[in-house]
Amino acid sequence: MSRVAYVNGRYVPYAKAAVHVEDRGFQFADGVYEVIAVNQGRLVDSSGHLQRLERSLAELRIGMPMTRAALLVVLQETIRRNRVRNGLVYLQVTRGAARREFAFPADTAPTVVAIARAVDMGKAAANAAKGVAAITRPDIRWGRCDIKSVGLLSAALAKQAAKEAGAYEAWLVDRDGKVTEGSSSNAWIVTRDNVLVTRGLSRAILGGITRSAVLELARREGLRIEERAFTVAEALDAREAFVTSTTSFVMPIVSLDGKPIGNGGPGLLAGKLRALYEAYMTGHGAGRPEWEAPFLAPPEAQAR
Amino acid sequence: MSRVAYVNGRYVPYAKAAVHVEDRGFQFADGVYEVIAVNQGRLVDSSGHLQRLERSLAELRIGMPMTRAALLVVLQETIRRNRVRNGLVYLQVTRGAARREFAFPADTAPTVVAIARAVDMGKAAANAAKGVAAITRPDIRWGRCDIKSVGLLSAALAKQAAKEAGAYEAWLVDRDGKVTEGSSSNAWIVTRDNVLVTRGLSRAILGGITRSAVLELARREGLRIEERAFTVAEALDAREAFVTSTTSFVMPIVSLDGKPIGNGGPGLLAGKLRALYEAYMTGHGAGRPEWEAPFLAPPEAQAR
Repeated sequence: MSRVAYVNGRYVPYAKAAVHVEDRGFQFADGVYEVIAVNQGRLVDSSGHLQRLERSLAELRIGMPMTRAALLVVLQETIRRNRVRNGLVYLQVTRGAARREFAFPADTAPTVVAIARAVDMGKAAANAAKGVAAITRPDIRWGRCDIKSVGLLSAALAKQAAKEAGAYEAWLVDRDGKVTEGSSSNAWIVTRDNVLVTRGLSRAILGGITRSAVLELARREGLRIEERAFTVAEALDAREAFVTSTTSFVMPIVSLDGKPIGNGGPGLLAGKLRALYEAYMTGHGAGRPEWEAPFLAPPEAQAR
Repeated sequence: MSRVAYVNGRYVPYAKAAVHVEDRGFQFADGVYEVIAVNQGRLVDSSGHLQRLERSLAELRIGMPMTRAALLVVLQETIRRNRVRNGLVYLQVTRGAARREFAFPADTAPTVVAIARAVDMGKAAANAAKGVAAITRPDIRWGRCDIKSVGLLSAALAKQAAKEAGAYEAWLVDRDGKVTEGSSSNAWIVTRDNVLVTRGLSRAILGGITRSAVLELARREGLRIEERAFTVAEALDAREAFVTSTTSFVMPIVSLDGKPIGNGGPGLLAGKLRALYEAYMTGHGAGRPEWEAPFLAPPEAQAR
């Protein structure tokens, strides 16, 4: 349960945490966010997340409301006040509140909100042990999915469809029949040749921080990696599939649209990468990370 | 200036009008809205707007927060308390506030916000008298633009680009080089053969209420009308161009990307339709509308 939220410079009781009805986040989805995992009371990959936040804001020409160091203090204080040891902190920054018009308002201070809450890690572990189902949905999102904006309505609809189908996640499929990513995760497969495949960065997907960490962990293991788009058929023919995200870590996908992937159980490589990622997180939690996953931005001149 | 806003059953001072930081409108753009013109203190086309609101909500499976009749009372009271004679009322309904997760929360009451403000009609008239400029931008919005959701970030970015180019509106262009609509208006041209052309309804555009009214006014005038997509080249070759919206009424477009349309001045037909629309609004304002523009939904089985 959240006890306290940070809102524009103040820590307020959760029930009273509010933004103005003319906040551009509320009226225009004109804002961005980050979700950062908390392990043993410490933030995981905060540098990468705050790099990405700054890049999302820059793409929308919203000013950084404060330095990254100051934001980090806010996040840490929000965690502390909510007594979160294992869980997450949610940070949202919008263009601020202004009399409604589509074009940017002049001289409006950004809105900053942070919320922290504990997450039951037992449930995630149980899910990972047996693997989870995914469905596919057409990717009808906007053309700038590299920006982590709060314009998440189509992602919410896709996730709801997954939930109603008894699935954990929806994989979004572009007009070419290729998987872009999950509604709130990056999508991966392991081919029959044991090649790890995940879509390359472009405006079509979000550059996940967990994706970045898992890529580095896989490289350190000497695994073969291809960053490229794959089709739904390729996924169904794969040896394994999984998703990565801040809250799912590495989560094996054992079926797609009701059809089994591989032997229908969690894959070996997914299990190995999850274990490596948990060890990586534990290093953060103990305050001794050996390295930190960077935010990887899409190439500037990438095709649409 | 707004004095009072309606928020979830209460009329509150504008400065204190707030929604929870975990409102799904703020975190997921999971809500819809309407803007209704106020003429001589009376709502214009409230039936069509509330029909559309109900349809947008139904598409997202958000329950109507109250009956249309009750919403109308809220809007009228919001206008009255803000002493608006000529202007607009803004109504937003979201899925409500809930602990953040992508899928729909269970049993959450929708959030309802209404704001009213006066609009200086002199400026609009001056704009209409000389005509306004438009630019084109790629349409990178999501695949359900028929739903009037608050996921307006790309529309806001397009409008900002227009403003910076000294233009009034941005016309959005799909992958086939055809104009979908303006960032907050429907787009129209008049061909050299004096045919009125505006894009047909589909998931690619919003079914404008003013569009619906102007189509009916044009029919009553016996004008030739084609509801079909047109290219940017066709627009540049047109005799006239204009946009329609709740707040622009009928606004002549005299240049596109810096190139003149027709003779570079407001078109005759645009001027005629604007006058007819103003008379139509005045009928509403006087409480004696002869007819009301319906909300026109896209065909159920329309192609994407």
